[in-house]
Amino acid sequence: MTGAKRIVSGMRPTGALHLGNLHGALQNWINMQEQYECFFFIADWHALTSDYENPGNIENYTRNMMIDWLAAGLSPEKNVLFVQSRVKEHAELFLLLSMITPVPWLERNPTYKEQIDALENRDLSTFGFLGYPVLQAADIIIYKADGVPVGIDQAPHIELTREIARRFNHLYGRVFPEPETVLTETSKILGTDRRKMSKSYNNAIFLSDPPEELRKKASRMITDPSRMKKTDPGDPSICNVFSFHRLYSPGALCAEIDPACRGAEIGCVECKKKMAEHLIEFLAPVRERIEYYRTHTDQVEQVMAEGSDRARRVAAQTLAEVRGAIRI
Amino acid sequence: MTGAKRIVSGMRPTGALHLGNLHGALQNWINMQEQYECFFFIADWHALTSDYENPGNIENYTRNMMIDWLAAGLSPEKNVLFVQSRVKEHAELFLLLSMITPVPWLERNPTYKEQIDALENRDLSTFGFLGYPVLQAADIIIYKADGVPVGIDQAPHIELTREIARRFNHLYGRVFPEPETVLTETSKILGTDRRKMSKSYNNAIFLSDPPEELRKKASRMITDPSRMKKTDPGDPSICNVFSFHRLYSPGALCAEIDPACRGAEIGCVECKKKMAEHLIEFLAPVRERIEYYRTHTDQVEQVMAEGSDRARRVAAQTLAEVRGAIRI
Repeated sequence: MTGAKRIVSGMRPTGALHLGNLHGALQNWINMQEQYECFFFIADWHALTSDYENPGNIENYTRNMMIDWLAAGLSPEKNVLFVQSRVKEHAELFLLLSMITPVPWLERNPTYKEQIDALENRDLSTFGFLGYPVLQAADIIIYKADGVPVGIDQAPHIELTREIARRFNHLYGRVFPEPETVLTETSKILGTDRRKMSKSYNNAIFLSDPPEELRKKASRMITDPSRMKKTDPGDPSICNVFSFHRLYSPGALCAEIDPACRGAEIGCVECKKKMAEHLIEFLAPVRERIEYYRTHTDQVEQVMAEGSDRARRVAAQTLAEVRGAIRI
Repeated sequence: MTGAKRIVSGMRPTGALHLGNLHGALQNWINMQEQYECFFFIADWHALTSDYENPGNIENYTRNMMIDWLAAGLSPEKNVLFVQSRVKEHAELFLLLSMITPVPWLERNPTYKEQIDALENRDLSTFGFLGYPVLQAADIIIYKADGVPVGIDQAPHIELTREIARRFNHLYGRVFPEPETVLTETSKILGTDRRKMSKSYNNAIFLSDPPEELRKKASRMITDPSRMKKTDPGDPSICNVFSFHRLYSPGALCAEIDPACRGAEIGCVECKKKMAEHLIEFLAPVRERIEYYRTHTDQVEQVMAEGSDRARRVAAQTLAEVRGAIRI
């Protein structure tokens, strides 16, 4: 349409977004919306691949995720923002691609056994979990994506998408371009306990956390673990609170704190308080927009409906070509 | 709607129908249309599970199969006659059921390894072939079928459908009844070479064969193999031509031929000629209707469109309940 390269990416509706999500995928998306034609979707069907036994209220999670997206700065005019399950063509292409995808391709997928081991308390030996990469391939190539933004750990998945596209083209004639992997940086900030920020670790700071909650979470953050007392010198380069300062505080403040921490002239309590106020300031407009959309869900519904309509028009066109190629 | 029990069954569009198909599944369907509410569909997506590498023109096969159905006496008023791929909800339910179906259930499916062995020159180790029973389950329970007419060899498939329905109900609340297996008789007639009648054995007599073709095929039929000469007595009870007589010739003629064959008073050539004329008479109105629909494909298209619309309305209602139960 615009001549810009087309990007497709999705996110599972697992609940409220946190700062790890924001500085990971979401900020990348917000940057990309200026230079690419972007299709971003909420992967609600994918949420069932691992959480089918206890899916929670996916419908609510989906609406809340769209609210977080809009509040963080994803534009429904610049991008096609939609909900996977509202574009039934994804399911049809999943079915058709499943016919041509060898089971061994899926079994040798490096993340398959890894995830089965990681989530050992859940029974993931389902047909749908095995076919996760087939649905992912359908999600991507149905829009004839030029590129897919992924972290380095996701690269093998995209290679499988390319293989499936290639096999389809070989069997039925060329319909799909092979999408490129667009490697993206992952978030540099950690959770309050210095582990990867994750809702399930209970160490996450959410975009929607109110100021009091932010102050409380900041006060509990683990800093440089070797700094036991205020009189010990600290090392900002390994301090997670300082990573937060670098993101949310003015450069001048960071330039003050760095030597003060190393010289034991500022204590962690004070340092965290300063950081918390700048984090509150940074999140204030985001939280305001979240509050707005939570009381204007009709607008959110309209965004999802219009985005899904736009996505469906493109997907339906691709499926017409697919059916023509297979002659079904 | 009518209080009658609901039956669902499908047929793969593999080409023109032959007498084996007619006296197998199709005649059962024609009988059932009088007492059940029937959903009969052309399983064009299923055609890809084993023939994805060389699907031929499935679209044409589908139209020709619908022509054969109508010509043989399936009524588009009494039944819902439709095309699987025109009701996208089948693909959506396939996707959702795949999330809850354990892979071992599919691997232990007795026909799975059997078919992989039987069709050893084709690569059937695809994800879609493994998931064949999941799609079949979706096809059936999407209409909340009370029963599924199957031959005895198909019974394990339906048991898997029941297990998948039960698992869904257990996880998300009761949406699906468990369909009963309605055992049906299989065709008693064999191909011209006394093997099972099958297009791929090149021993089939098609509903659309013109009279000259029927005479030629009848003349080549293998009769009682131990009757070498006309002067040898024959045994009608093991003669395939006599099976045809029983289906197509008047009872009086059968009553004449039986002792005449046993007494070597009638030769196989004459016996086949008589049978051929009655077969021609039997098929004449069927063939006439086939000719009619082949030159009135707009009417066939209308039947498929209207039937698929009727099916879609029921399927969409079920999917709304399904999404409500999963809360997606």
